[in-house]
Amino acid sequence: MRRLPALILSLGLTAGSALGATSPPPQSLDAILSSAPASAWRDIPQDRLIYLRLPKGLVVIEVAPRFAPDHVANLRLLAGARFFDGLTVARVQDDYVVQWGDAEARRPRGGALERLPPEFDHRFTADEPFTALPDLDTYAPQTGFTDGFPAARDPLSGQAWLTHCYGMVGVGRDNAADSGDASELYAVIGQAPRQLDRNVALMGRVIEGIDILSSLPRGHGPLGFYEKASEHTAILSLAFGDQLPADRQVHFQALRTDSSTFQALVQNRRYRQDAWYKAPAGRIDVCNVPLPVRVAP
Amino acid sequence: MRRLPALILSLGLTAGSALGATSPPPQSLDAILSSAPASAWRDIPQDRLIYLRLPKGLVVIEVAPRFAPDHVANLRLLAGARFFDGLTVARVQDDYVVQWGDAEARRPRGGALERLPPEFDHRFTADEPFTALPDLDTYAPQTGFTDGFPAARDPLSGQAWLTHCYGMVGVGRDNAADSGDASELYAVIGQAPRQLDRNVALMGRVIEGIDILSSLPRGHGPLGFYEKASEHTAILSLAFGDQLPADRQVHFQALRTDSSTFQALVQNRRYRQDAWYKAPAGRIDVCNVPLPVRVAP
Repeated sequence: MRRLPALILSLGLTAGSALGATSPPPQSLDAILSSAPASAWRDIPQDRLIYLRLPKGLVVIEVAPRFAPDHVANLRLLAGARFFDGLTVARVQDDYVVQWGDAEARRPRGGALERLPPEFDHRFTADEPFTALPDLDTYAPQTGFTDGFPAARDPLSGQAWLTHCYGMVGVGRDNAADSGDASELYAVIGQAPRQLDRNVALMGRVIEGIDILSSLPRGHGPLGFYEKASEHTAILSLAFGDQLPADRQVHFQALRTDSSTFQALVQNRRYRQDAWYKAPAGRIDVCNVPLPVRVAP
Repeated sequence: MRRLPALILSLGLTAGSALGATSPPPQSLDAILSSAPASAWRDIPQDRLIYLRLPKGLVVIEVAPRFAPDHVANLRLLAGARFFDGLTVARVQDDYVVQWGDAEARRPRGGALERLPPEFDHRFTADEPFTALPDLDTYAPQTGFTDGFPAARDPLSGQAWLTHCYGMVGVGRDNAADSGDASELYAVIGQAPRQLDRNVALMGRVIEGIDILSSLPRGHGPLGFYEKASEHTAILSLAFGDQLPADRQVHFQALRTDSSTFQALVQNRRYRQDAWYKAPAGRIDVCNVPLPVRVAP
């Protein structure tokens, strides 16, 4: 059976042996990750995790308070008030986004605000971590990784922002820049819609269960909204990890994007060395770099 | 209900009015397309169309004989021998590819070859159409569109190739460059895996029904292969349009990528002018440019 080579999955390493090479590549991604020191992995604290329970399983999001502190704080209040429980996934637009929640829901909001400052980008500080990629990017002067998230910078203006890569989670808004309040969220499920960068607040990334969202039936109404209520997917619950009992928390670890292991991973993905590749790209897009996450061993 | 702006769908125009702007944008994508002259659209002949029938509906692929003439010809022989009918979709790897067919199937092949020249790229000629994008690309010296397909060029080496954008269809192969024979095909369903460019033969693009493929349940075996036969999706039939009776053919038209209408569309997508966008990108990736297709009016 002929195969295309593997993409690394967010959990679980891909089987290098499935590539069909008769001799192992010089340094496989599996080898890079399995030989990483413990210090290359960071624990994700429960207050940085959102657990979105759907009938088909669990979706887990890591939030990015450095980039969207007010949105994360507001979402925490909404989640604490069980604002989302019983709402639905109402929109699945192919090659674009899955969207859930409801900005018009008349539900307890736990004191959450109805308007927030945009948080589309911010002025980066000298001590803000940023692992830059050397490669050209269509949309930004510079791309790389901050706190494990794909990001971009403009060194001239001193601004930094998160990039709309597959699995990134943002906040729906109306035309007014301050009209997003985290009561309606979306996750990217297609080609990175980078034209949204700096136009909307990104607040996290799906680290587990993106396939549950991306394999939902597409909506056939305008903008990919479902036409019938029966098509919606129910949200069983949405809560931060520290709002859940301990037996429902999962201990995730993410590869540090400021580690030498991550640097080796990026080089491995820029220059594929296994027997399948005939013309390694020697380049990589910020949205093609795998960001490994595992359940703590 | 808060919304993100629309992506154009491959069939059917998006509702500009759903963006919530109180006054219409200077020139909407809808307006650009609805005012296009008939000459901006090209008919796609039936011998350039593959009809892949699945239980959930029809997937239609336009083939690209300029880039992969031998693969298209071989696929025509396989399809004519009903090689694919009764085979399955065996692999759905999230954010990567859907794969179908079976290189090991012991079935009538209609004289199709078992090995083909790679057709990963070719030397472009002076009269080969190419609508170049002005924007930087991470992977290629130049990107643009040829015959309605996303493509790239290296002006120094004189080579041209198709790019692995969402919905593009390629030919699975083993490690040997000539081991692909079009008996196993894949479609891209995630972030463009551009590292595959020039490493594998792309032979077409899904112009209808990509959502049927992209919403299939993901496989949880290695490389996204299904672990159980019961998970596979049956292929009811795969045939070129001219191999089908007239009443099963659909008359598709595609926007010419060498038309002034397409140029206006690209500019519209580079500089979003509706009220939702606060910071238009002024740039676009070759894989973010919509390639409109319609059923002939």
